[in-house]
Amino acid sequence: MQVTVLVGGVGGARFLQGVKAAAGPGDRIRAVVNVGDDIWLHGLRVCPDLDTCMYTLGAGIDTEKGWGRAKETWSVREELEAYGADPTWFGLGDRDVATHLVRTRMLRAGYPLSQVTTALCDRWAPGVELIPASDDRIETHVVVDDPADGQRKAIHFQEWWVRHRAALPALSFASVGREQATAAPDALAAVAEADVVLVAPSNPVVSVNTIVDVPTMRPALTAAPGRVVGVSPIVDGHAVRGMAEACLAAVDVPVSAEGVGRWYGSRTTGGLLDGWLVAPGDGAQVPGVEVREVPLMMTDPDATAAMVRAAYEVAGV
Amino acid sequence: MQVTVLVGGVGGARFLQGVKAAAGPGDRIRAVVNVGDDIWLHGLRVCPDLDTCMYTLGAGIDTEKGWGRAKETWSVREELEAYGADPTWFGLGDRDVATHLVRTRMLRAGYPLSQVTTALCDRWAPGVELIPASDDRIETHVVVDDPADGQRKAIHFQEWWVRHRAALPALSFASVGREQATAAPDALAAVAEADVVLVAPSNPVVSVNTIVDVPTMRPALTAAPGRVVGVSPIVDGHAVRGMAEACLAAVDVPVSAEGVGRWYGSRTTGGLLDGWLVAPGDGAQVPGVEVREVPLMMTDPDATAAMVRAAYEVAGV
Repeated sequence: MQVTVLVGGVGGARFLQGVKAAAGPGDRIRAVVNVGDDIWLHGLRVCPDLDTCMYTLGAGIDTEKGWGRAKETWSVREELEAYGADPTWFGLGDRDVATHLVRTRMLRAGYPLSQVTTALCDRWAPGVELIPASDDRIETHVVVDDPADGQRKAIHFQEWWVRHRAALPALSFASVGREQATAAPDALAAVAEADVVLVAPSNPVVSVNTIVDVPTMRPALTAAPGRVVGVSPIVDGHAVRGMAEACLAAVDVPVSAEGVGRWYGSRTTGGLLDGWLVAPGDGAQVPGVEVREVPLMMTDPDATAAMVRAAYEVAGV
Repeated sequence: MQVTVLVGGVGGARFLQGVKAAAGPGDRIRAVVNVGDDIWLHGLRVCPDLDTCMYTLGAGIDTEKGWGRAKETWSVREELEAYGADPTWFGLGDRDVATHLVRTRMLRAGYPLSQVTTALCDRWAPGVELIPASDDRIETHVVVDDPADGQRKAIHFQEWWVRHRAALPALSFASVGREQATAAPDALAAVAEADVVLVAPSNPVVSVNTIVDVPTMRPALTAAPGRVVGVSPIVDGHAVRGMAEACLAAVDVPVSAEGVGRWYGSRTTGGLLDGWLVAPGDGAQVPGVEVREVPLMMTDPDATAAMVRAAYEVAGV
């Protein structure tokens, strides 16, 4: 069976652990990973979602934090601060820096991000083919009113997320570069060849929707021969992790499994979903979408695998 | 008084400590630093001689090794090795990497190396103005016969020095990029404005001569109003430190204070020197150059300062 999963960072990586745990021999798992969080920092190309998936699946993750490298050291960050090098609000770990060095060197040599990612994964052997949603630069910016001077401005998603902890109200999101971008060829192939497409319980606005909105990706998803089944990131009216609430508010979507399901919409009417998994008691009505209630807590890969198997049932695979 | 010193790495940095120790209030010390050892590694611009001077004078050096940062950590190197990223024979310390990140980012933004160096020195306050010999890329390569396949090839100086420990016979040296390069404007000004120009006991071939051979630098040295006094790196027929012997052999220069002094030559005949300090007992004859015997061991900054004061006497300042 061929499975393709649309994922963001931490939640997406954990979901992929469940997809691996649920896989049978010969199954091919591909993940189309959000690149909207990517950012140039200190001359290095940093791809937080790709790296979180790679480190998590390759047993290199800091399991307590859920992101970054295990046994990380912070000499580079200390020194950059001593130089007064901006930005100071995003700390790069030393081990992580090495990944960015390899990536940046390859990108500057002309390799597309998808090939660079494959090369990095040669080391980590994640067991899932990690494919950036696009080889082009697409970066999510957040429109905010700066509390310092009252000015309305767009800041990089990472500045909003990491520096302001998403506490500054997001007025809207903009995908800088999207109009000139196309989906990575491997990402389109992954969707077209899949027996089933899963949508991880990642941030609907800045992870999943940022993937879907890459030009050429939405038509590929609409035309996908496999069914598309999503997993709600909202349980009992709250985001299971992360700060999805602040993102949903900016796009006027109710913080509920039904709200997100309806926002994604049915494939029969140009939306994303054929099926939608919600937590027990969250019984959602999403026109044109088969909704099923199953436990959604990703407490460990086996629990997540049970969710994945439920999604396969809904997809008929 | 204005003093300008031509320097390489470790020996040059120690010599500069002596120049600082010998300085009076209001003295201005500038160092024109070799850039022939500079190299791109993992997408980072590494300037070993500039950094050794900066770290040494700014109290950031690993005093035992004489190069690299104190309290260095090596996570980046470990990870680059795990990725199989070439080259593996040059290990970048984590703290050092931060310097290269700041430098590389500024260079890519269009700042010349001399301005980048000034910016880095804002942090280190070395007490000496460190000026790269050139803002252009000039890299020393070494022509060798590869023992693996017998092929004659040119390898970067760092590969010869660090990987092969200078044990592979150097057939000749080539300064790649030199013909298109000019001396940094600040370097020319430092020579033109100096009351005295000192030549540190650095490697004559790959440090001092690489500076002097930068187009526009030799005429500036010839025209310098101050006297030029050098310090022999050879004592009793041996290089005090480093692997200068292997370099001198490649250019057919005898490993002696007299041999190096004659190779530098007198300013009266188009050479570099007005004065030449040699160790007691090394009594050299260098036509047109005033030779003086003084103790030349740089055991500490005070001992080095005594050498510097002797050079000032020879220079008549």
